[in-house]
Amino acid sequence: MNSQAKIFEIGKNRIEALSDGIFAIVMTLLILEIHVPKLSPDSPNVEVAPALIALWPKFVSYLVTFVSLGFFWVGHHIMYHAIRRADRTILWLNIFFFMFVSLLPFSTSLLNAFPQAFIAPLFFGANLAVIGWILFFQWSYVNSQPDMLADFVSAEYRKTVSARMLLVPVATTLTAVFCFWSVGISLVIYLLLLPLYMLPGKLAGAKAQRFKPAS
Amino acid sequence: MNSQAKIFEIGKNRIEALSDGIFAIVMTLLILEIHVPKLSPDSPNVEVAPALIALWPKFVSYLVTFVSLGFFWVGHHIMYHAIRRADRTILWLNIFFFMFVSLLPFSTSLLNAFPQAFIAPLFFGANLAVIGWILFFQWSYVNSQPDMLADFVSAEYRKTVSARMLLVPVATTLTAVFCFWSVGISLVIYLLLLPLYMLPGKLAGAKAQRFKPAS
Amino acid sequence: MNSQAKIFEIGKNRIEALSDGIFAIVMTLLILEIHVPKLSPDSPNVEVAPALIALWPKFVSYLVTFVSLGFFWVGHHIMYHAIRRADRTILWLNIFFFMFVSLLPFSTSLLNAFPQAFIAPLFFGANLAVIGWILFFQWSYVNSQPDMLADFVSAEYRKTVSARMLLVPVATTLTAVFCFWSVGISLVIYLLLLPLYMLPGKLAGAKAQRFKPAS
Amino acid sequence: MNSQAKIFEIGKNRIEALSDGIFAIVMTLLILEIHVPKLSPDSPNVEVAPALIALWPKFVSYLVTFVSLGFFWVGHHIMYHAIRRADRTILWLNIFFFMFVSLLPFSTSLLNAFPQAFIAPLFFGANLAVIGWILFFQWSYVNSQPDMLADFVSAEYRKTVSARMLLVPVATTLTAVFCFWSVGISLVIYLLLLPLYMLPGKLAGAKAQRFKPAS
Repeated sequence: MNSQAKIFEIGKNRIEALSDGIFAIVMTLLILEIHVPKLSPDSPNVEVAPALIALWPKFVSYLVTFVSLGFFWVGHHIMYHAIRRADRTILWLNIFFFMFVSLLPFSTSLLNAFPQAFIAPLFFGANLAVIGWILFFQWSYVNSQPDMLADFVSAEYRKTVSARMLLVPVATTLTAVFCFWSVGISLVIYLLLLPLYMLPGKLAGAKAQRFKPAS
Repeated sequence: MNSQAKIFEIGKNRIEALSDGIFAIVMTLLILEIHVPKLSPDSPNVEVAPALIALWPKFVSYLVTFVSLGFFWVGHHIMYHAIRRADRTILWLNIFFFMFVSLLPFSTSLLNAFPQAFIAPLFFGANLAVIGWILFFQWSYVNSQPDMLADFVSAEYRKTVSARMLLVPVATTLTAVFCFWSVGISLVIYLLLLPLYMLPGKLAGAKAQRFKPAS
Repeated sequence: MNSQAKIFEIGKNRIEALSDGIFAIVMTLLILEIHVPKLSPDSPNVEVAPALIALWPKFVSYLVTFVSLGFFWVGHHIMYHAIRRADRTILWLNIFFFMFVSLLPFSTSLLNAFPQAFIAPLFFGANLAVIGWILFFQWSYVNSQPDMLADFVSAEYRKTVSARMLLVPVATTLTAVFCFWSVGISLVIYLLLLPLYMLPGKLAGAKAQRFKPAS
Repeated sequence: MNSQAKIFEIGKNRIEALSDGIFAIVMTLLILEIHVPKLSPDSPNVEVAPALIALWPKFVSYLVTFVSLGFFWVGHHIMYHAIRRADRTILWLNIFFFMFVSLLPFSTSLLNAFPQAFIAPLFFGANLAVIGWILFFQWSYVNSQPDMLADFVSAEYRKTVSARMLLVPVATTLTAVFCFWSVGISLVIYLLLLPLYMLPGKLAGAKAQRFKPAS
């Protein structure tokens, strides 16, 4: 690596700092989507309570978006844990990754505003899918540049992470596609597929164990 | 710890970075709840001053929420100071912790909007209580996994932190429960219990001293 | 320092992280105070340009608040550069410091909304003054606990920083007090005093040089 | 470096932390500019879809602003990678840099609001240009203070970074100037010049190679 290369070397710690900042802000901006019911300030409990309960679809979309952001943040973190250094390609993939992460409050807002129009869950699902695919492309690119990976990364580690990185975009793409047929079924698929992402630690570990010599 | 475990190892420094970001944003978003009085731009002082003073309940809830966030941030920090590494369970407990921290601006807004309806302080108190309980569950989980704790953590240290971690959820749960009876009494309980949290450093230290051999 | 003390030891790096987050957010929230002129989307240039120019007082208050935040951030940074460790007192002084920093967007908004009412610049000036005084009290407290200061901090260093830390609260208190007499004169005092804060590096250095043996 | 100098020494890591925070927030605030179409909640797909498509100019300005912020963030990062330490001059240039970065959501909002008035793209272009120039002045200042640069920075490295740092302000100034003639042409120039910034890594490397002895 000559001195010219160093000019364009981007410290991975600053990408992580920008990432943590963006995730923190998007997570907290989501709540601005949920407005206090428009009732007079002296409304009694019997009026306020039902108005609050009627907000439940917004709380559901808050939960779904927050948990999805959680998945993306964990995925981004796992990837950068395995990366030794960043380059300009990975940097710009990140900028576009952040662009679609920052779009999520709009997509959630759209989902809340128009429950009858299937364009709303389609837009939301497509947003999640694009975020997932950019994350997967980042990992694929890093995988094709072995000197970008940390020393502890083995071939089997790469396979396990690849499988995990593919799960979210596939789940969200299926969700977006099934929207054309039924929004309800689409949401059920998403909610069933995501927990898979939380669990594969043991599955992947077990599978990898079979291929590993005792040590 | 084999290489598979490392895949799912989440650096505690990134959880801390996300946490600091979320607390910073929620703390600063709170002020957006307080709107400048709606008067014409050429209003004289005799009109603006009383309108500003009439905002006092909003300033009180700003103070209460800000200080509560301070307690949670300190609690989170003390816990992570004692943790050596994070795992997936602790990570997802954190995501849910952040979800309820980010909900606080909404709860505060509700509290400001409907002073007559007890559902408002109940919702606010319940929000604080859930944040406190998740923090306590995190600590309980870490306590059950001794290899997750830093070397300097003694049995007596764990007991002291456990007692402290339990104080906030108990205080906020009591607050939320007493709401059914009287909102005023509920707030007084909260404001009396919280300062206990600021002080126990010396009490706990004194108590621990008795059990410690001279050194 | 026994193990009990460590429970309540707050890493200064996390206070710095929270501080940088809060300053970054308050600085960027300020612009939300300036709204695009309310004109129809097909307004020609001759209508938009004057409406934009008429916003100049808001741009002035944006500049003043942003630069003031710059001073407080620099002041906070210089102080923490000289601090070895934090304790609970310093932590809670910080939480209150952040509470008044986060209040600034409201104070700026008030200043923009009511140019005729002297309560507006008084509130704004008082807000700046309180921030400055809390910063000064933090420094005074740290100064009274010599084991909290870093090794490189000499008696003369402490005097120089004390003088600098006192300048902002004095300037802002004078500003707030002169508001009762004339808002214009009050602003002029503030704008004249602040640049002193930018320059004393050389003055202080020169003065200190006289007392220092050649080395 | 005597102890007086140290008082005013600002750690470059805290400037980087403030910078990452401000970029993260401005990037995420941009989406607040795009509002969900104002239609009744039970609007069918045939009404929502066209209303969403009609938002395309806002998505274009979101993309342009986001990518521009990406360029500035990368430029700021490259510069601080080459800087050993900050001083008060560089610190205050940064505060003004942040002031104009934080202004961008307003400029984007103006661009979206008044497509007919050339003052809008002029203001937007001027905002980008000022950000770029402040970044260039920072680099020029650092270049004139060789002890502020890291050891690995060679004369040729400085030339390459200088050329890169000059590209964005020149591109944005041309954009702003051409606005007087045609907004369309102005945007085309900007979109053609920016990709140059993404590519010069290889060009600069190739050119530098010619002057370098084989090693």
